[in-house]
Amino acid sequence: MKKFNFKILNRDGAARVGEIATPKGNISTPAFMPVGTAATVKAMLPSSVRSTGAQILLSNTYHLMLRPSAERINALGGLHKFMNWDGPILTDSGGFQVMSLSELRKITENGVDFKSHIDGSKHFLSPERSMEIQKLLGSDIVMSFDECTPFPETKLRSEASMQMSMRWAKRSVEAFGERPGYALFGIQQGSIFKDLREESAKKLGQLSFDGYAIGGLAVGEGQDQMFKVLDYAPGQLPNDKPRYLMGVGKPDDIVGAVERGVDMFDCVLPSRSGRTGQGITRYGAVNLRNARHKNDPRPLDSECSCPACSNYSRAYLHHVIKTGEIIGSMLLTWHNLHYYQTLMNDLRQAISNQHLSKFVKDFREMQSIGDIEKI
Amino acid sequence: MKKFNFKILNRDGAARVGEIATPKGNISTPAFMPVGTAATVKAMLPSSVRSTGAQILLSNTYHLMLRPSAERINALGGLHKFMNWDGPILTDSGGFQVMSLSELRKITENGVDFKSHIDGSKHFLSPERSMEIQKLLGSDIVMSFDECTPFPETKLRSEASMQMSMRWAKRSVEAFGERPGYALFGIQQGSIFKDLREESAKKLGQLSFDGYAIGGLAVGEGQDQMFKVLDYAPGQLPNDKPRYLMGVGKPDDIVGAVERGVDMFDCVLPSRSGRTGQGITRYGAVNLRNARHKNDPRPLDSECSCPACSNYSRAYLHHVIKTGEIIGSMLLTWHNLHYYQTLMNDLRQAISNQHLSKFVKDFREMQSIGDIEKI
Repeated sequence: MKKFNFKILNRDGAARVGEIATPKGNISTPAFMPVGTAATVKAMLPSSVRSTGAQILLSNTYHLMLRPSAERINALGGLHKFMNWDGPILTDSGGFQVMSLSELRKITENGVDFKSHIDGSKHFLSPERSMEIQKLLGSDIVMSFDECTPFPETKLRSEASMQMSMRWAKRSVEAFGERPGYALFGIQQGSIFKDLREESAKKLGQLSFDGYAIGGLAVGEGQDQMFKVLDYAPGQLPNDKPRYLMGVGKPDDIVGAVERGVDMFDCVLPSRSGRTGQGITRYGAVNLRNARHKNDPRPLDSECSCPACSNYSRAYLHHVIKTGEIIGSMLLTWHNLHYYQTLMNDLRQAISNQHLSKFVKDFREMQSIGDIEKI
Repeated sequence: MKKFNFKILNRDGAARVGEIATPKGNISTPAFMPVGTAATVKAMLPSSVRSTGAQILLSNTYHLMLRPSAERINALGGLHKFMNWDGPILTDSGGFQVMSLSELRKITENGVDFKSHIDGSKHFLSPERSMEIQKLLGSDIVMSFDECTPFPETKLRSEASMQMSMRWAKRSVEAFGERPGYALFGIQQGSIFKDLREESAKKLGQLSFDGYAIGGLAVGEGQDQMFKVLDYAPGQLPNDKPRYLMGVGKPDDIVGAVERGVDMFDCVLPSRSGRTGQGITRYGAVNLRNARHKNDPRPLDSECSCPACSNYSRAYLHHVIKTGEIIGSMLLTWHNLHYYQTLMNDLRQAISNQHLSKFVKDFREMQSIGDIEKI
């Protein structure tokens, strides 16, 4: 079986263009992974997600372990078959959502006892159980089990949390074992403290993961603070492995993180905003609910080739969003995911051509327009 | 411009196979028209609706006149462009929905004053206004404005209602005028009274419509009563024009009506049931919400080639319906519309091969199974 592998093809400053090879297909980096929380990228068929340029999906351990359960998905042939996506899938460890969504959780060194936010049923997650679930799902890129340190947090508590995550990372490696063709990523913690991040990176480096995530960011610290951490965090991690910034983000978050050496991203923003009537464009976000669109025959973005922009007016998008029609969610989600993949492709080209700083300057100017309307 | 035209190609008993030619494309009959109430077939892209075999859509005058308004759609280039459907569109007259949905309506010989069920705004519909709206929309097959006689109703009131509809039909013809390439259909009323239906058909026949609908059925009278009317009503209408049974129906309603000489149908059932987790199959309706599907690796119907049946298990459909995921509505609507178009195609073949009675016998046996599960 083809092995999991990462190759850097080009660099521009700290930014890199690379390729992750997996048995289920290659992933060009910097890459954006659409989120398929409950075994579906909401309002999209997998073939449509693929057509936007997406090469890998993210799915959520926490949601799937509760419904329909990892054991059931395994018995049905695994997550790829279940959700009809034959490309690579990355699953998170469940650690983040168990903190943010579940009820009555109790964290000990061993793991986390919690109650389902859906039906109150009791569950347990630990490094060993998280590895087991992700294996049952058939995930191609498995995330080690960690605690996402809350923000803000004292340095003392941030350190204790990071140290537990590092012990959990070691247990994750041991539980994961040898699985050719599948990858295990470690997750750096340490909040906004450079020396804690350094120590976390060092401990992870000793465990020889296939890739490294930067965890504990995009949790309320703001873009300035996040970029300050990203000025050093990617460089603390092994240079020859993919670096993944979890849960990020808005287009300008992604651009700033790519400039600083990040290779992978995931975020619910493009799909979630699509369902609430937000179109994300080169010119910034456009609220299609706004009445000023109701007579507008122009597409959301005349240069976009997605089905929403190719076939419909802003007036139609406004109409179907206002009337709560499902096609509104379908079209805007499609557009937003298409825009994100176009952005990633543009970033890869800019890095390959050593034009990243010019690209970023142009990108920021365009985004500051706020809406194509105003041109 | 190509004219609107209807040709009967084959017959088997009272049933006919035909072809309606319109400037926007041909329609093989017996035909089922998916319903695109608010300028969208709910949870479907137009290209997906087309891929099921649909050749014509129905859209609703009442809903569109309220939101986004016929004038706005006209200013945006008409309904076809607005909703991205380049095939023929039939619009109803608004008469049925104004009775069933609107508030504070007042019916006079002139027309109907009513308040919108959405925002309480005041509106007026009459034969002249209905023709104007349907013209503004760019509808290919325009329905004359009528009153759908409630059921049950006394013969005296049924006659009065029918007579008013016949006067409205005449006003509809006059208001419609000469519009080459566009068709106007008259609507037969008369409740369940054969002589009233006969008189209605005679009056409509004098107005030389391009087609004729059988109105006032599927309003609570039940299938037995409906079939009794259909034993004579289609034969009262001109033989060389399409006959359209409005708002029908379940697969066995359609089969029984085709046997009795009906050529066109529309119904929200396949799309609405799709959104509530009902799969409509050769074997009857399957409720995918039922827990017995949760471990079932089989497709909804192994002989169906729609995306839901080709790519997903019953377990997946159960999961996405239980979790309220939009893809559940998308997949089941697609399946149901695909099944309806397959049924219409099978009916056309059976009539062409003079095998309709055998087809109907087999169809009834299959449907009585109730669920593929039980085979």
